[in-house]
Amino acid sequence: MAQITRSWLSSLKRISQQNGSVQKTCALRASSAFIAGEPEGPTVKTDVPGPKSKQLLNELSVIQQAGSVQLFADYERSLGNYLVDVDGNVLLDVYTQISSMPLGYNHPDLLQLLNDPYNVKTIVNRPALGVFPGADWPKKLKNILLQVAPPELNHVTTMMCGSCSNENAYKSIFIWYQQKQRGSSTDFSREEIESCVVNQPPGSPSLSLMSFYGAFHGRTLGALSTTHSKYIHKIDIPAFDWPVASFPQYRYPLEENRRENDAEDKRCLAEVEDLFAQFSKKGKPVAGIVVEPIQAEGGDNEASPHFFQELQRIAKQDMPLQKTNNQLPDLINSCCLRPLQPYRVFNTWMGDPSKLLLLQGVLEVVRRDSLLAVVQKSGEKLLTGLRSFEQEFPHLLHSARGRGTFLSVTCSSARLRDDLIARLKKKGVQTGGCGELSIRLRPALIFTPKHADIFLDRFRQVLKETK
Amino acid sequence: MAQITRSWLSSLKRISQQNGSVQKTCALRASSAFIAGEPEGPTVKTDVPGPKSKQLLNELSVIQQAGSVQLFADYERSLGNYLVDVDGNVLLDVYTQISSMPLGYNHPDLLQLLNDPYNVKTIVNRPALGVFPGADWPKKLKNILLQVAPPELNHVTTMMCGSCSNENAYKSIFIWYQQKQRGSSTDFSREEIESCVVNQPPGSPSLSLMSFYGAFHGRTLGALSTTHSKYIHKIDIPAFDWPVASFPQYRYPLEENRRENDAEDKRCLAEVEDLFAQFSKKGKPVAGIVVEPIQAEGGDNEASPHFFQELQRIAKQDMPLQKTNNQLPDLINSCCLRPLQPYRVFNTWMGDPSKLLLLQGVLEVVRRDSLLAVVQKSGEKLLTGLRSFEQEFPHLLHSARGRGTFLSVTCSSARLRDDLIARLKKKGVQTGGCGELSIRLRPALIFTPKHADIFLDRFRQVLKETK
Repeated sequence: MAQITRSWLSSLKRISQQNGSVQKTCALRASSAFIAGEPEGPTVKTDVPGPKSKQLLNELSVIQQAGSVQLFADYERSLGNYLVDVDGNVLLDVYTQISSMPLGYNHPDLLQLLNDPYNVKTIVNRPALGVFPGADWPKKLKNILLQVAPPELNHVTTMMCGSCSNENAYKSIFIWYQQKQRGSSTDFSREEIESCVVNQPPGSPSLSLMSFYGAFHGRTLGALSTTHSKYIHKIDIPAFDWPVASFPQYRYPLEENRRENDAEDKRCLAEVEDLFAQFSKKGKPVAGIVVEPIQAEGGDNEASPHFFQELQRIAKQDMPLQKTNNQLPDLINSCCLRPLQPYRVFNTWMGDPSKLLLLQGVLEVVRRDSLLAVVQKSGEKLLTGLRSFEQEFPHLLHSARGRGTFLSVTCSSARLRDDLIARLKKKGVQTGGCGELSIRLRPALIFTPKHADIFLDRFRQVLKETK
Repeated sequence: MAQITRSWLSSLKRISQQNGSVQKTCALRASSAFIAGEPEGPTVKTDVPGPKSKQLLNELSVIQQAGSVQLFADYERSLGNYLVDVDGNVLLDVYTQISSMPLGYNHPDLLQLLNDPYNVKTIVNRPALGVFPGADWPKKLKNILLQVAPPELNHVTTMMCGSCSNENAYKSIFIWYQQKQRGSSTDFSREEIESCVVNQPPGSPSLSLMSFYGAFHGRTLGALSTTHSKYIHKIDIPAFDWPVASFPQYRYPLEENRRENDAEDKRCLAEVEDLFAQFSKKGKPVAGIVVEPIQAEGGDNEASPHFFQELQRIAKQDMPLQKTNNQLPDLINSCCLRPLQPYRVFNTWMGDPSKLLLLQGVLEVVRRDSLLAVVQKSGEKLLTGLRSFEQEFPHLLHSARGRGTFLSVTCSSARLRDDLIARLKKKGVQTGGCGELSIRLRPALIFTPKHADIFLDRFRQVLKETK
């Protein structure tokens, strides 16, 4: 369920990018209209992590592997685009909890939601949605999730998180593929029924899913078998022997490198067709393709519309194309992927209505405050700024890219990238990395051009101070 | 994270069962003290599902496979042990959303939690706990989760749900196993790093996990490879080729069938040792064993302490034993399973503080209202009642079993079982099935002997009316 938030956020940005006519009719409010009392700018008083964060990290490390923790936050004092840490440092947050806080911190409209006793009951009475859904559930799915889904995706099955959504999307693909082999029969053979219980074919068939180098689809064992962004996610973990194809690696700016990039598309598509044949030959036919429209964790790698159209053409010869993560919500399947029988794509909770409640609140604010226009304006300002830095510091940065405020830029080395992120934090700006070389921006939808100015100013200082 | 609730619920019941001295000092409050305004008993006005539920099911079926839905609930009107549906039927809920509502519906203390602005902020500001945890997080883990964990399990890593917890427990086992092979070295080889990215050994090693017939550990692809309770969960889905051993099937009452049951333990343990050897020989060594102390979904199948001790002995020769679901919380690992490096057992959110908030509320009510004593008394009454029905209706029921109110009874046929559950519902009692033949009881902790009387009365009527 929660995955929806991120997918939806990205969808909105995409829509914002593609539909200029909508934005032109929207007046951009002053930033103060979004979050009253937001700090004027970042303030850094200590190292980050500071002494209090370090103390808490020591405590946490006694009971878990906590090596990934960057700081401890004060979520009472964090507000809007500003993350406040326990040492009192106020950071402009351009990363928003790995891109999962669409309205930033403590948005008054979201806090307000829990003044409504009906909503409080939604938090407390979490149902097993697949068995005992609440009276409002069909309407909520239609009025909240399907309202922001692409119109051709008219089915929705909610799940627990991104990995869980992908795992169940994969199951739906395999179920669809096997049903296709059965034709009009809905019966399972005795042999299928008995063999699947002990993980053996024909009941547990020898099928594969194709994914791409650099992809990230999650960390549970099925999803992890389609994730190929960083070795540390995968090493020591058994995986399915499934095909991995190259994802296009483009040269930027795109318009100046059209010939090389077209050739790169061709090379990758040829590899896809070749792997299809290989895996079919070795008795592990490809039942589906899993692909991100923009590989995010893997480095904000984009592919061209032509690449996706060709991929779809290849897939349509044989299977459904399942886009995930950034463009189409993971868990919205078209009706062809609906299992004939119940209990096959199912779990105890099947999502969480309390998350849908928050999403509803987010969507209302986005409409009321015309946040798509904000994303458009802030994104243009950010991308223009990043491109000017490429000109000013060509030895440090290149390939600024993205849609709306979903942006990134590539650094000339991994060491430089890590160093820039660390020094940005010292200047009060929280960003994140992706791939080996890129810095990614994932600000909230309430990130205004004023915030973009602050970010760009600090980033330019950091670049100028780079030896 | 949420899985904790169920594991913890079961742990409490287990403690309740085993530690009679605690309960004897607790005075049992009248049921009215638990939930003011709870209905006096069930009322059934229509078929279940009634016309309004059927209408909503039609709506939902347009957008998803909804064949598992039993009814639509009115969560505004549901209260305590009573689930109210949209047709106004009031059902005594002995199943509690697949055993996930420890305090029943709309418990006033849980509703009250969200009057506190601090808690409202916890709902709205969901952090990426592995990177930016809140100031209160280490303390909450220690004071809430570790307070109810068995003392030898002193580590805790929160996850998203039960399947996600199991998937990450499995990853921890594989990481531990491979680290053991590396000895004191913490370096990965170039070959391991490169091969794991494309799902191949040695980086993605050919290791296995042992699980048991009848087990249920979740439905994501790794967890599903250790789930063997019902074919419909597994058919058409590719699985890892991992060993599946027999889980003891006892005759009841246990004390009258000791010799047969001991022999059954021996048979299953011999199979475990045999499978170890087989999978080692075929190059898929067993890195760990995954086992439920009571197989719940698979039929409430219990195994003896002797069986588990022997299993642990076999495992200790080579690997950790990972108990899941019912006795030890899935996601609490002992420190030997802590990965040396960060980002290996990790995801975007790593749990949800809003669920820990609810668990904290639940634990406070359990202590304040001495609910362990209630569980003990109600459980005794229920089990005594079920055993008397076995005597009265020996052709219909046998093998009443369980701990506290975590109880079940086996029916003489699958058809009878389904029929009894359906007719119990017509009399206003919501129960659930497990395995092929069993009815399971999973009432809330506020289920008092008075509620047990109502359940037993309705169940006896249904049994008497069975042709």
